[in-house]
Amino acid sequence: MSAVYESDAQRTPIASGRERYLCHTPNLMMVVVDFNDGPTAQPDPPHSHPHEQVTYVAEGEVLFFIDQVGYKLKVGDMIAVPANVPHTVQLLTQRVRLVDTFNPIRADFLK
Amino acid sequence: MSAVYESDAQRTPIASGRERYLCHTPNLMMVVVDFNDGPTAQPDPPHSHPHEQVTYVAEGEVLFFIDQVGYKLKVGDMIAVPANVPHTVQLLTQRVRLVDTFNPIRADFLK
Repeated sequence: MSAVYESDAQRTPIASGRERYLCHTPNLMMVVVDFNDGPTAQPDPPHSHPHEQVTYVAEGEVLFFIDQVGYKLKVGDMIAVPANVPHTVQLLTQRVRLVDTFNPIRADFLK
Repeated sequence: MSAVYESDAQRTPIASGRERYLCHTPNLMMVVVDFNDGPTAQPDPPHSHPHEQVTYVAEGEVLFFIDQVGYKLKVGDMIAVPANVPHTVQLLTQRVRLVDTFNPIRADFLK
């Protein structure tokens, strides 16, 4: 199936108040991540992965940290995360939607 | 620069009422495409490219055609376009924002 409709997407809980749904080709994965637990008092613990990542902010505002440098992002902004570089977010609004994209695909998200 | 802010992004006109701005890593490109010329009476001419594509609908509604099969998409929906498969859109609302992502990057968009 080519299209993934939000109305009937398979949503995966990832933490309290957070869930995702996704769509991918063989080498490109797009993941909509909905946060409903903000604002948060501090950033999440940083993480890294060998996948390159580009993120679009579709709702809300965040502080997006790449290697400890913070970028304040709001709807319409994008950010590029190189492979293997630690990154994380701090939510500045209650609701946030990030559209994370990855190459290669996050096979760990398909389990 | 890691972040691309909508407020000061370099926008590229692509047609009357249509423009884009983008952000990328070496192998992954995200392109925000703003259409302000809808609704359109018929689909644009189909096109194809060797790049895999996944698109997120950030604003408005479209009919997204892949190989002549139409999918009606609205905000929050995604669609996957395999490499080399003809695809196009027909706008159903005046304003539409698509977040197109590609692997490999669209080098033609960096000229």
